[in-house]
Amino acid sequence: MRGHTHQEFETELRNLKDRLLAMGGRCEHMIADAIRAFEERDEALAREVIEADRSMDDDEVLVDEQAVRILALRQPVGRDLRFAVAAVKASTDLERIGDEAVNIAERAIEMEPTDRLSLPGSKLPEMAGRAGAMLRNALNAFVEEDASKARHVFQHDDAVDDLYTEVMGLCLDYMKDPSRIADGMRICNCAKYLERIADHATNIAEMVIFMVEGRDVRHGKG
Amino acid sequence: MRGHTHQEFETELRNLKDRLLAMGGRCEHMIADAIRAFEERDEALAREVIEADRSMDDDEVLVDEQAVRILALRQPVGRDLRFAVAAVKASTDLERIGDEAVNIAERAIEMEPTDRLSLPGSKLPEMAGRAGAMLRNALNAFVEEDASKARHVFQHDDAVDDLYTEVMGLCLDYMKDPSRIADGMRICNCAKYLERIADHATNIAEMVIFMVEGRDVRHGKG
Repeated sequence: MRGHTHQEFETELRNLKDRLLAMGGRCEHMIADAIRAFEERDEALAREVIEADRSMDDDEVLVDEQAVRILALRQPVGRDLRFAVAAVKASTDLERIGDEAVNIAERAIEMEPTDRLSLPGSKLPEMAGRAGAMLRNALNAFVEEDASKARHVFQHDDAVDDLYTEVMGLCLDYMKDPSRIADGMRICNCAKYLERIADHATNIAEMVIFMVEGRDVRHGKG
Repeated sequence: MRGHTHQEFETELRNLKDRLLAMGGRCEHMIADAIRAFEERDEALAREVIEADRSMDDDEVLVDEQAVRILALRQPVGRDLRFAVAAVKASTDLERIGDEAVNIAERAIEMEPTDRLSLPGSKLPEMAGRAGAMLRNALNAFVEEDASKARHVFQHDDAVDDLYTEVMGLCLDYMKDPSRIADGMRICNCAKYLERIADHATNIAEMVIFMVEGRDVRHGKG
């Protein structure tokens, strides 16, 4: 592709990247708001997160449509082809990160109004911060097609896993008082949701490697 | 595409469908084995499930490679294009169903050796049976490109959600004895894993609708 058509193609790829970045930015806000709603027992904020998830579902469809359109009209090869395929996989991860933020918001609404800052719950904002940073870094690696940045994301996954284990231990202790079982489980669940968000970020980072370093499919097995 | 090339293309699509069906069959076995390991506290069987997951990861890569190869070499349009794109999304769901089966197997290994068939745990096999059937039906709808079969899958998701709520209630009760908290959480987690398997089956069914009824991308927005 040359000249005018090539420029159009570049514009379409740029639009697709911008949409993925915008979805990622929305995810980050949803995670941060959901955790704040959880910490501060802010039901109105939790409901905003649940509401915001609607546009995530639309975004996934739009990313897929844009990618399919590029595949149909531009018939890209090599890295551009892998980029379009990776984009439809990444949109799934982003949409599910939105679902996890909704899960956190739902647990926030269910929490008992007392005991505002329990010890196990106090670890969640740090987990959320790290998971959010992983997502941001993974998406930047994605749109910059930078495999080395993507590999940095993997390193942070261990820290999130360690925090998850720590929260689980604290929760088991916390729930020895039967009146705290339901809330203890909600905190555990939120830790699990955050761990899954980190996993989704890791998935996106893995796709960057596939996209940048993937074998030429014409010589691939299959 | 006509004649010989058309036949080759049909063969490639068939191979891709067969691989997805094979992945789905493996998932079903893993789910059934993981739940049996959980019920019977069979650590050896649980370890087999964990081992079986390795080939799921390879399968996801192979499906994606086959789909990308079809996109690159055949440059399909319309429904075939959407099929190839849906296949790379479905492979993600199947790989993650494998991960959920591994999660169940890991909880099976951790369970206390006593109290073989607790009341909340006794509901898991039914949940697993329903989630496995949803997966089978979703994949059949996928390879048969049958939107009406796909819609049947959605109806069964509610039954799995109801079972999940039931197990959660039973678990909260079960954990009132503090010595049972850890096992109670493991049972809850397994119910959550099964509910997620049902969600993945639902995602696959949704992709069938996109594939069969998707708008012509040349007139799509984006």
